[in-house]
Amino acid sequence: MNIGIVGLGLMGGSLAKAVKKYGIAKKVYGYARSEKSKKEILELNLVDELVDIQRLKDECDLIVLAIPVDNIISFLPNLLDIDKNTTIMDLGSTKEFIVKNIPNEIRSNFVAAHPMCGSEKFGPKASMDNLYEGKTVVLCDLEANDELHKNRAIKVFQDIGMRLVFMNSHNHDVHACYMSHLPHAISYSLANTVMNHEDPKSIIALAAGGFTDMSRIAKSSPNMWTDIFKQNRENLLNSIDLFEDHMKKVRQMVEDEEYEKLEEWMKKANTLHEIL
Amino acid sequence: MNIGIVGLGLMGGSLAKAVKKYGIAKKVYGYARSEKSKKEILELNLVDELVDIQRLKDECDLIVLAIPVDNIISFLPNLLDIDKNTTIMDLGSTKEFIVKNIPNEIRSNFVAAHPMCGSEKFGPKASMDNLYEGKTVVLCDLEANDELHKNRAIKVFQDIGMRLVFMNSHNHDVHACYMSHLPHAISYSLANTVMNHEDPKSIIALAAGGFTDMSRIAKSSPNMWTDIFKQNRENLLNSIDLFEDHMKKVRQMVEDEEYEKLEEWMKKANTLHEIL
Repeated sequence: MNIGIVGLGLMGGSLAKAVKKYGIAKKVYGYARSEKSKKEILELNLVDELVDIQRLKDECDLIVLAIPVDNIISFLPNLLDIDKNTTIMDLGSTKEFIVKNIPNEIRSNFVAAHPMCGSEKFGPKASMDNLYEGKTVVLCDLEANDELHKNRAIKVFQDIGMRLVFMNSHNHDVHACYMSHLPHAISYSLANTVMNHEDPKSIIALAAGGFTDMSRIAKSSPNMWTDIFKQNRENLLNSIDLFEDHMKKVRQMVEDEEYEKLEEWMKKANTLHEIL
Repeated sequence: MNIGIVGLGLMGGSLAKAVKKYGIAKKVYGYARSEKSKKEILELNLVDELVDIQRLKDECDLIVLAIPVDNIISFLPNLLDIDKNTTIMDLGSTKEFIVKNIPNEIRSNFVAAHPMCGSEKFGPKASMDNLYEGKTVVLCDLEANDELHKNRAIKVFQDIGMRLVFMNSHNHDVHACYMSHLPHAISYSLANTVMNHEDPKSIIALAAGGFTDMSRIAKSSPNMWTDIFKQNRENLLNSIDLFEDHMKKVRQMVEDEEYEKLEEWMKKANTLHEIL
């Protein structure tokens, strides 16, 4: 099988490394737009060859869109004349808006996937051959896919060591919001709060107190995350409201010096132990 | 030197292991109240002997209070008749309230310290011999200490591999609030939000999306953290207000679909790269 990867940043570059490592692809082709990315991809030897869109379509059995979620949708018109045996797959963090915008001509080819792994790092240099190993991939609305495409996508994710979860795209977006998009909004807010208030010297000296972990994902790509917030807007607004209820609650309990109630509320959060 | 440690949970137990590992103490004595703790401490062989308060005072050159911040203050009356050559040290996460409550009789003996390390885990079993290595300890208001006590405390922290930072207790509490106490309040809120909304199955399946890191410290001890929030109440309320300004801002930008502004705001958070 030949695999073509559109976008060779953290997700795409890591996929290129993984399919090579496990001998899944005969050839790995890459497509990138910026000259800077192209140079990095070649220096890192991420793909066998960088090609244009036509060659991607001519030579690949599987084309993976590893680009920001808005770009996925704007890239699709390039693929309308794809062979019926060529699989298209995306790796975006939102699913419902993407699925709704897949043109009918390629709906059965297009497998909507969200590998739940990542890092705050981005770009070709951030790619790792073990990013996907042991992690979960959510596959959405597979009933819309031909067996060939569904099975090919499933096999690739299994072969690179992923655990499969199946969900409809609407439910995916709700869950992904609470487990990923809301935490990112919070982390960006915390990082901005602390950097406005604290000097760099204190941040470096005192970072071990919880801030390092809580602010790590605030280093994530603004371009990518703006698109995710845009596409999952309603769920994000709802989740922020629920989170804000808790922030108001903890503030009120501290203000009113209701420390027994505060401890009970912390104990509820502690039950996370039993799950994670 | 003989060292006595009051409370042998994560901080105290790890200190016991570290001073043994580096051969700093001739004898390590422990003091614990609950039978459960005593049993665990003995099983884990954390100290040479568990003793009562009188023997701590009779036999130790250094007594370390590794207990929740409110308990530190209530323990002090036990130490009023301490020998003038015995050093007392605390490891609490707040400093100003503690320092203000040190009785005059022992003020020059008492070194106020906050090692900026830790883990969400607590209790004797959580102790690790390398918890302190390479981490920062903040030492506060040292001008109130006799040279003997100041130098002894500094030497112990250096010998277990810590980096020293000096600060007055007021400034410590402001910085520790932003770098540690606020992140804990946020993490507890996020954990409660997600556990109210999501089922355990989804939490386990999708936890890699940022939630794991952001919720880790929500597993921390409610007893210990209630006391910290209580002692650093005013700073915490102020920091929550500043954080809430940012949460309102991100919510508003998403609601108003001001995505360019949102990306700029994320880029500001991204500058954290340059510091951490």
